[in-house]
Amino acid sequence: MPAMIRPSASSVLGGLRSYATAPSNRPRVALPRARQRPSPPHLLTLADLTPAQIFFLLTSSLTFKSLAKSFSPGSVRSSLSARTIAMIFSKRSTRTRVASETATKLLGGHPMFLGSQDIQLGVNETLEDTAKVVGSMVDGIMARVGEHSEIEALAKHSPVPVINALSKLYHPTQILADLMTLHETYNPVPEPPELWRGEAQSALYKHLKQSVDPLASLRGKKMAWVGDINNIINEIMVTVPRLGMTLAIAAPKGYDTVDPAVWARVTEAGTEGSIILTNDPAEALKDADVVVTDTWISMGQEQEKADRLKAFEGYQITNQMVESAGAKPDWKFMHCLPRKPEEVDDEVFYGPRSLVFPEAENRKWTTVACFDAYFGRWSIPGGERKEVAFE
Amino acid sequence: MPAMIRPSASSVLGGLRSYATAPSNRPRVALPRARQRPSPPHLLTLADLTPAQIFFLLTSSLTFKSLAKSFSPGSVRSSLSARTIAMIFSKRSTRTRVASETATKLLGGHPMFLGSQDIQLGVNETLEDTAKVVGSMVDGIMARVGEHSEIEALAKHSPVPVINALSKLYHPTQILADLMTLHETYNPVPEPPELWRGEAQSALYKHLKQSVDPLASLRGKKMAWVGDINNIINEIMVTVPRLGMTLAIAAPKGYDTVDPAVWARVTEAGTEGSIILTNDPAEALKDADVVVTDTWISMGQEQEKADRLKAFEGYQITNQMVESAGAKPDWKFMHCLPRKPEEVDDEVFYGPRSLVFPEAENRKWTTVACFDAYFGRWSIPGGERKEVAFE
Amino acid sequence: MPAMIRPSASSVLGGLRSYATAPSNRPRVALPRARQRPSPPHLLTLADLTPAQIFFLLTSSLTFKSLAKSFSPGSVRSSLSARTIAMIFSKRSTRTRVASETATKLLGGHPMFLGSQDIQLGVNETLEDTAKVVGSMVDGIMARVGEHSEIEALAKHSPVPVINALSKLYHPTQILADLMTLHETYNPVPEPPELWRGEAQSALYKHLKQSVDPLASLRGKKMAWVGDINNIINEIMVTVPRLGMTLAIAAPKGYDTVDPAVWARVTEAGTEGSIILTNDPAEALKDADVVVTDTWISMGQEQEKADRLKAFEGYQITNQMVESAGAKPDWKFMHCLPRKPEEVDDEVFYGPRSLVFPEAENRKWTTVACFDAYFGRWSIPGGERKEVAFE
Repeated sequence: MPAMIRPSASSVLGGLRSYATAPSNRPRVALPRARQRPSPPHLLTLADLTPAQIFFLLTSSLTFKSLAKSFSPGSVRSSLSARTIAMIFSKRSTRTRVASETATKLLGGHPMFLGSQDIQLGVNETLEDTAKVVGSMVDGIMARVGEHSEIEALAKHSPVPVINALSKLYHPTQILADLMTLHETYNPVPEPPELWRGEAQSALYKHLKQSVDPLASLRGKKMAWVGDINNIINEIMVTVPRLGMTLAIAAPKGYDTVDPAVWARVTEAGTEGSIILTNDPAEALKDADVVVTDTWISMGQEQEKADRLKAFEGYQITNQMVESAGAKPDWKFMHCLPRKPEEVDDEVFYGPRSLVFPEAENRKWTTVACFDAYFGRWSIPGGERKEVAFE
Repeated sequence: MPAMIRPSASSVLGGLRSYATAPSNRPRVALPRARQRPSPPHLLTLADLTPAQIFFLLTSSLTFKSLAKSFSPGSVRSSLSARTIAMIFSKRSTRTRVASETATKLLGGHPMFLGSQDIQLGVNETLEDTAKVVGSMVDGIMARVGEHSEIEALAKHSPVPVINALSKLYHPTQILADLMTLHETYNPVPEPPELWRGEAQSALYKHLKQSVDPLASLRGKKMAWVGDINNIINEIMVTVPRLGMTLAIAAPKGYDTVDPAVWARVTEAGTEGSIILTNDPAEALKDADVVVTDTWISMGQEQEKADRLKAFEGYQITNQMVESAGAKPDWKFMHCLPRKPEEVDDEVFYGPRSLVFPEAENRKWTTVACFDAYFGRWSIPGGERKEVAFE
Repeated sequence: MPAMIRPSASSVLGGLRSYATAPSNRPRVALPRARQRPSPPHLLTLADLTPAQIFFLLTSSLTFKSLAKSFSPGSVRSSLSARTIAMIFSKRSTRTRVASETATKLLGGHPMFLGSQDIQLGVNETLEDTAKVVGSMVDGIMARVGEHSEIEALAKHSPVPVINALSKLYHPTQILADLMTLHETYNPVPEPPELWRGEAQSALYKHLKQSVDPLASLRGKKMAWVGDINNIINEIMVTVPRLGMTLAIAAPKGYDTVDPAVWARVTEAGTEGSIILTNDPAEALKDADVVVTDTWISMGQEQEKADRLKAFEGYQITNQMVESAGAKPDWKFMHCLPRKPEEVDDEVFYGPRSLVFPEAENRKWTTVACFDAYFGRWSIPGGERKEVAFE
């Protein structure tokens, strides 16, 4: 695996300039191109990506963020120009929606939001028909579904790439944002002197080249999850141990069952040894670099609130609780929002250890990278799929 | 009529290059142009268009599709750049909405979707006030209404073009997509060798020039409708006989009344002789080239379901039923979706005779042509309205 | 104050050409610019703006309208290119929404509409968290809220500019549209001869330069408000007297209380002397140049309808009523829509004195000016905030 997670920096950087708007050489094309397209790539969970592909998406996210914020949003390449991305959301999701709409626009595309009022997956027609029809008119589908089988059915029948915006099982774009935020925390971008635009661009490339491996920041770190077993920790389980991190999961008895499909991906990757499952938050927090939790009372589970409050007694993250458990002195706090005070107090949530707001903002930048790769380029270098050259 | 439906191919093709993004000569303009605009053209039903105008819209649809798919969506001219199209939808309509949003974006515009949650036609203010106010801020209105009089009222008072996205009486954009799909079926685009971009563009123009008359494909064909008398067959009745096709309509007793307003358009065109009305599906299907149906149980009619299932006994399209009735050996099947199994079985619907998915995709390309002509150019060559030169 | 409301015409006009799409010299930049941004400007009420800033926004509105309508929407500078504006609307608002979406698109941006179905301010998370999270991903926030404290909380915590699209207390963008409409009424744009594009642009600049002071049109005019004390008249009260107009407000007993927070802004400006409060419509209408009203029965107040109809007896605007009260011979009528017949009859509403439809259209053009200034430039010249040079 170490070989896989260290692609040649120069090969990745060779393509960096393609993120900007500079005109590209026009490729040889045949008509109609649509019929010659390969089958579309889909992002249903990070478990399907190699560490090299995760490396690629993170580097891409950092580059888009730097370009857009250092220069201007208009300086980013318009890989979705004249294109429409369908955003099929069975459930409300402010952060995912805002991240997806702003990401699509940054790349020049139009985000078409279809809520449960607009389209009901599987109700008025089969998922197969919806995937074929919508997929024949749009350039990509981002979908938030209920059962994971729904996103799999969309991907199976869609002629364009499908990205999972959240299913009961997985949440890939959230975890990419978490990893990006950790990298930035351990490798802050230096404040450069005032420069002319051209010099500034060069300085940016130089910085990105020097700190090009976002996975190096993460290797050897310990992440502690204190809370429910849900789609967030599922996605973490199948991803972060493969990047060289250790993971400790504390969940109360009765809420500590890992879905067999998720655990199968863990054993397939051979990373069981990097994961600790416990009912004791203190055990999970011992030596932790990063403390992560999520709301235990999700949308639609309000009726279980009383039961859950009792079961999760002692699970509220506080400075005292984390420090007495022996976390690392510079421990950080993450939460994917929206947050309720039950799972973390104000002191931690709004305090200096909290990464929650950069983490939320990075939902946008990692979505930009995913949309550019999947919907724009149909290619995520570093995997088994034949690599397509940058335009 | 034959003279009307054969406009000079070269005059149409002379404008073909204007579909691409090449810069145009800037025209002489006076300020403010808005006050000098002619009254806007509206598309309420294809009955208002000459066959030459339908020819124009179909050729335009084929050209946009070829350009976008052979090269890239960004290669299409941005005739709606910086413009917003209001999409006022009193009822849900996935296909029409997706086709309209993606079409608007392809042309560089912004589709502003206003559902029944956002705007209620005629409820909080008069239709006249809404048409004037919304029309003064947008560059075009696409509306799905209940009564046909509602779309007529919008068109009467709007300062910008109005396109009917579906009324109780007519559905013009659906029938354009059907005609385009039939033309493509009878005249498939050849697979060219791999070419450089410039050569490919030339090859495309050459192909379009050679097969430039989409109406020639349709002339003499027989279309059989087996189902309810609704807005789809209304639109077909006032359109396809004028293009030289014959039409046979089978509907059960009690469901076989043609709206007098629709029949008046048929007699006005003098095409009664090309239309057969029957209660016997077998009679309609005899010698048919194209078999069309639609859901008998539309939105809001669920309570009538049991009655209708009984009335429409023997109306389900199956291979056995169509072939025993003596349809042409290469008969094709069309359906505007969403589909329920009652009206057509899986074997036909998902089988090789089915055109339903290309038909759905072509909703997009015909909408692109309509939006470009009505909202972008304010002109549909081939009719009585004074022709405006392409920019 | 007179000195403040007359900024040098040439200094404003020096920047006029920057409204068109001509390429600008690229500025010296440092990276990342985001960290160096000043705190964002917010538009919560016109009471916060100097008359010079109002002058700037009106001139900007007129220029955008002329450019877009004389040439084409695409001729306007894309100051929101690749950017997304969040439109958070707690309540339905057709005009404000259509104006904001079309304005955003005209400037090249994407309007992301978030209705009460999509996001519920303060329900699932604190306003602070929403402002920080949404604000970190978008380039501006337009919000229609309930309590004015909600828009203040958004502005306090948002990292990007916030514009009030309507609160219980104020409605700044509506009043800008009213002022613009009055200026156009008193200073109609001359119809120029047909010109080449370059000459036409010059003629437009010349016209704007000659009639550059929109406030001069308003000075000395009397506005009469006949109706409820609501957010519209609040905004008028804190604005138009500062521009040299007099204001008479007629409201029935029991509906005539001015919010102390609003009156505090009036006394702070020292304009109490320019405002008359009365219960007698005739007193207010005497010598009026402009007659303004609004619906007394707003959304959510239907239950009070009977009480209000009684209290507002004699308040319906009719020609007879206004003329017998002694209004100026060329009096004009304004209404922010939607309108009900109770407050104004058809003869006035659809008659030649009515400015309601131009007023509605100008919602778009003033919103373009505000979005360009606040979201695009982060600067409104003429105030205390350090002026930022145009790009």
